[in-house]
Amino acid sequence: MNFASDNWAGAHPAIAAALQDAAGGFEPAYGGDRLTKAVEAEFARIFGRDVAVFFVGTGTAANSLALAALGKPGGLVFCHEGAHINTDEGSAPEYLSGCKLIGIPGVDGRLTAAALAETLARFPPNPVRYGQPAAVSLSNLTEYGTAYAPPDIAAIANVAHDAGLGVHLDGARFGNAVAAIGVPPAALSAAAGVDVMSFGGSKAGCFAAEAVLFFDPARAAEFPFLRKRSGHLFSKSRFIAAQFLALLEDDLWLDLARHANAMAAQLREAVTAAGGRLAWPAMGNEVFVILPQAMAKRAADSGARFGEWDAEPGMLSTDEVLIRLVTCFATTDAEVDAFARVLRT
Amino acid sequence: MNFASDNWAGAHPAIAAALQDAAGGFEPAYGGDRLTKAVEAEFARIFGRDVAVFFVGTGTAANSLALAALGKPGGLVFCHEGAHINTDEGSAPEYLSGCKLIGIPGVDGRLTAAALAETLARFPPNPVRYGQPAAVSLSNLTEYGTAYAPPDIAAIANVAHDAGLGVHLDGARFGNAVAAIGVPPAALSAAAGVDVMSFGGSKAGCFAAEAVLFFDPARAAEFPFLRKRSGHLFSKSRFIAAQFLALLEDDLWLDLARHANAMAAQLREAVTAAGGRLAWPAMGNEVFVILPQAMAKRAADSGARFGEWDAEPGMLSTDEVLIRLVTCFATTDAEVDAFARVLRT
Amino acid sequence: MNFASDNWAGAHPAIAAALQDAAGGFEPAYGGDRLTKAVEAEFARIFGRDVAVFFVGTGTAANSLALAALGKPGGLVFCHEGAHINTDEGSAPEYLSGCKLIGIPGVDGRLTAAALAETLARFPPNPVRYGQPAAVSLSNLTEYGTAYAPPDIAAIANVAHDAGLGVHLDGARFGNAVAAIGVPPAALSAAAGVDVMSFGGSKAGCFAAEAVLFFDPARAAEFPFLRKRSGHLFSKSRFIAAQFLALLEDDLWLDLARHANAMAAQLREAVTAAGGRLAWPAMGNEVFVILPQAMAKRAADSGARFGEWDAEPGMLSTDEVLIRLVTCFATTDAEVDAFARVLRT
Amino acid sequence: MNFASDNWAGAHPAIAAALQDAAGGFEPAYGGDRLTKAVEAEFARIFGRDVAVFFVGTGTAANSLALAALGKPGGLVFCHEGAHINTDEGSAPEYLSGCKLIGIPGVDGRLTAAALAETLARFPPNPVRYGQPAAVSLSNLTEYGTAYAPPDIAAIANVAHDAGLGVHLDGARFGNAVAAIGVPPAALSAAAGVDVMSFGGSKAGCFAAEAVLFFDPARAAEFPFLRKRSGHLFSKSRFIAAQFLALLEDDLWLDLARHANAMAAQLREAVTAAGGRLAWPAMGNEVFVILPQAMAKRAADSGARFGEWDAEPGMLSTDEVLIRLVTCFATTDAEVDAFARVLRT
Repeated sequence: MNFASDNWAGAHPAIAAALQDAAGGFEPAYGGDRLTKAVEAEFARIFGRDVAVFFVGTGTAANSLALAALGKPGGLVFCHEGAHINTDEGSAPEYLSGCKLIGIPGVDGRLTAAALAETLARFPPNPVRYGQPAAVSLSNLTEYGTAYAPPDIAAIANVAHDAGLGVHLDGARFGNAVAAIGVPPAALSAAAGVDVMSFGGSKAGCFAAEAVLFFDPARAAEFPFLRKRSGHLFSKSRFIAAQFLALLEDDLWLDLARHANAMAAQLREAVTAAGGRLAWPAMGNEVFVILPQAMAKRAADSGARFGEWDAEPGMLSTDEVLIRLVTCFATTDAEVDAFARVLRT
Repeated sequence: MNFASDNWAGAHPAIAAALQDAAGGFEPAYGGDRLTKAVEAEFARIFGRDVAVFFVGTGTAANSLALAALGKPGGLVFCHEGAHINTDEGSAPEYLSGCKLIGIPGVDGRLTAAALAETLARFPPNPVRYGQPAAVSLSNLTEYGTAYAPPDIAAIANVAHDAGLGVHLDGARFGNAVAAIGVPPAALSAAAGVDVMSFGGSKAGCFAAEAVLFFDPARAAEFPFLRKRSGHLFSKSRFIAAQFLALLEDDLWLDLARHANAMAAQLREAVTAAGGRLAWPAMGNEVFVILPQAMAKRAADSGARFGEWDAEPGMLSTDEVLIRLVTCFATTDAEVDAFARVLRT
Repeated sequence: MNFASDNWAGAHPAIAAALQDAAGGFEPAYGGDRLTKAVEAEFARIFGRDVAVFFVGTGTAANSLALAALGKPGGLVFCHEGAHINTDEGSAPEYLSGCKLIGIPGVDGRLTAAALAETLARFPPNPVRYGQPAAVSLSNLTEYGTAYAPPDIAAIANVAHDAGLGVHLDGARFGNAVAAIGVPPAALSAAAGVDVMSFGGSKAGCFAAEAVLFFDPARAAEFPFLRKRSGHLFSKSRFIAAQFLALLEDDLWLDLARHANAMAAQLREAVTAAGGRLAWPAMGNEVFVILPQAMAKRAADSGARFGEWDAEPGMLSTDEVLIRLVTCFATTDAEVDAFARVLRT
Repeated sequence: MNFASDNWAGAHPAIAAALQDAAGGFEPAYGGDRLTKAVEAEFARIFGRDVAVFFVGTGTAANSLALAALGKPGGLVFCHEGAHINTDEGSAPEYLSGCKLIGIPGVDGRLTAAALAETLARFPPNPVRYGQPAAVSLSNLTEYGTAYAPPDIAAIANVAHDAGLGVHLDGARFGNAVAAIGVPPAALSAAAGVDVMSFGGSKAGCFAAEAVLFFDPARAAEFPFLRKRSGHLFSKSRFIAAQFLALLEDDLWLDLARHANAMAAQLREAVTAAGGRLAWPAMGNEVFVILPQAMAKRAADSGARFGEWDAEPGMLSTDEVLIRLVTCFATTDAEVDAFARVLRT
């Protein structure tokens, strides 16, 4: 019953096997190898267009360096106030991009085009004292477990592009969003106006595999230098590539995401049946649920692993707690059933 | 016949197997897992003292963040003018540490205590216009394939410490240096005055495993934040740990380094027997050799892989070329023999 | 009738004369001169203790470099959400300090100890994902024209120090705050727990004179390097010093601040008598007043200079506007009377 | 007998008077004033083309921010190894531009086109490990008191532009170079291929007045933000402007530079007549001369002020010393004569 986080999970067997298979022999370092090229081809297939692909060490690095690519001196990056880049990445986005983050409130962790437009109106493009608007950053799934649909993203991207901003997508759980919305990957990214995205492999089932994707490869001209100067150019690039290849081939990533989402849906049923209230709509592989403290304690005592989460003001009664349950490729029916039983007791 | 670089090699079977074995189950993220703790214990065993251990994405990140830990505003880092940090890391050391690098000439890629002292005399500690001396950085093996012995390092560290500088060791090929000199690891690091080192696993036989080690853990207080803000905190830390564990347990790393050094020694014999001249003493797993261009071309045409290297002024006749041959855990007698045969033809 | 800003004013005649007097002869550069030393003595007299004094180019530089001195990697600086450093300095505070700013709401532009404590509770000192709390920054006068009294500052400083944070004071209009509260300068700074302050001379009547003051000179050890690497060490330091000397000697700065405050008090009477409502208490040399748009237009048409200001949500009726009126050493009774007449018409 | 440095001098009476005259009244802040506009017109007149003009706090800031404007991620800036930016600016150029400086040897402090081309050949434009060549920076006068003529600069600029590099000129003593070479200012800057220059007013006779000039204003689009984020946007910009206006009007700056150069020429005669040897050709307002230690000591004892300078290896006999004598607008015949007498005694 481990619902602590999808980054507590291990690696999917197919990915582990692929890495094992790739372990031998010699290949050019720094991305000159065949596997790295093959990953580029896979991403091009998945998104239906040329994609410039850059592996980096972590999701935080992917987000931060993507923003660096969109950044400007004195630049401003607009995001939801609860976005991972704004609350959980130790100022790496600011440090590596040189930009200031402007958090915007939004229901259920989602930014809206209207809220972005209203905020941008307070930051006219020219005066140096404000800084210059440079980019907007979305997450899909959001940090609250909700998902944007294509029109949501397109509306935001339109506002952004009209104001001269680049659009970044944090796709640490992009597969879960694609599975939740049920559209092709491009519909939630390039086709909706996303310029650069972080594509996360680690939470999806890899050991450690994160990438920055540029849907307009011409915008990537400076990125190799941004990556190198922050120490994110892997010498044995082929071993990141091997993981991605196994994840992307035959759309394993979407199968795994669908599985995780299905497990989360079962969890959602279980917790609401037991009297829990959802804090936010559980659309992907995360269930944020408000439980009586006693029930949460009972679950923890019985061995279930999950994290407490900061509630919004007024969300909780005094004897309640907000917890986050995360599923992944490795979550089993048996685990979910066991958890449901504990709650029912 | 692949002598292009030790980062063209794959992963050692024992390390690949260990990663496969560790792939399942759930463990806390961000270094809270058991394997990460076990690696700390292994490093403590190897160096005979408490060591604060931090995994990062690449050797460049390890060097740069180690220097950040020793850095100061307007700080100066002294190193050999041909050091990897000064010539091959895309300004990451400067960018992540905020320091300026001062290159010092030195025979065979080695800095000397005398040259360091002489250089420091030109940078008195106080005037702001020069910046403030902050650290010295050594590599062992050096970028020229040579090795420092304990007294070399101790002499340099004494000069550095007397001037208030920290001492960093770039140990991308530390195992090869230990194997070359034949002393315990501590004798080439902590016991000789090294404060912080980059310990490289990737060239030693891992997929991707690099660490920064602090021999005085108290100096590491700010390091978690330096690592996080540059995007180098892995979520699934245990998979870097699994690689290091397999590398360090039973001193596999030293066995592999000894093998690589032995292969390099055979290569050295072969190239000198064929009329090549060594550019610098070949002490570890790298042989820098000056060959007639025709001989180098013949070798390349017969399928041998190696790189050309920048010669020092006056080192080459007009029909000569300087090449670098690198061996590793995966180099075989057969490859070396084949290369020797090609040269002899 | 120029109430646009105190930085639209010129230089006070005594300061202009002092600079003229100092213009001749030769003196050591970079702060080795006698006038720079004399300014240090003046500040020591004013604050009743040793003060380390550093001139810098602008108020933005003073704030940003002061925060750099208190900063840490991944550091967090807490301030009022409407603070000048958070809204009007083009990300210089973030860029030069490497810290992220966390804006905190507060009535009338003032932070409270309770709000700071509540915010700090959300940022525990250790987890790297949040960053590490490093400093709190106050402004006195605030950006809203209000002032803190000594107990306000002491309460905030206590919370900050208990949590290991440094305390910075933005004193761009410090003289106006001292004049408003009517206590010795130390009571609003060092004695209340301020560690480092920006002391502004430009708005007080200088051409360009800004300084960073450390009340514990030992904390200033790295500051010369922070200043130099950002290009803020003046070669002819003595000419900044000459301005400060004239401003500080015989407490001219307080006389000028009292005059500006008195002019603002008259303006306040005039605008409220004419039916305007104060947006926030006008305690120093700034009057933020809500006027009927027609009245504001009439004033502007009659030649009065002032700026519109962003109102808080719900503050204005549809036909109202929020304007800021700023007085300074050069504001005259005649100007204020003329403005009052225009409003009354 | 003060020959310590031109930044030990005061302000020229005409400049002091102009500042006094400008001290009253109200004007828009942050460069919106009439004097700042008038300075732009003066620079356009002097250089015979539109020039984008930005005041900053110091010469170090001017150089560093100019390089930031020409910089790139992982960028390399090529300069003479003894350039002021490389040896005397506390790493501000690296910090504010994010670039690494590559020092190139050159006789008499001058870079040559051939040496630049040879160095660039070692840094091909693409591989990330080297970084990407971004700019070349020249000083005129050089740090060794020598001057470049138009063809020297044009040859270097051609090599730079062919390789895609921007060209920066450090003009801390630009007037002395123009006076030395005897050509129009444009011939040593825009017309010779300089893209951005630092124009120094402080050493020329101002209190503190430094500017960055863009000869192609389109390249200056990001500069306002680079300046603001480093704290170099003066609020009372008009007071920097007033100094520059007085300096530039009627070409006072060139008159003063000619005077300083003439004084240096007399000094040169005096020191060589007394048996001193010039270390480098004394072309502007600096004389670097090798004297017997006894003679230098006698001069110092008699009250002359000057600085010792680092000699190149082999330049000095054991009883010799290298000193620098700097003249300025305020240097008098009487001072030079007195110094000559001391040497002769």
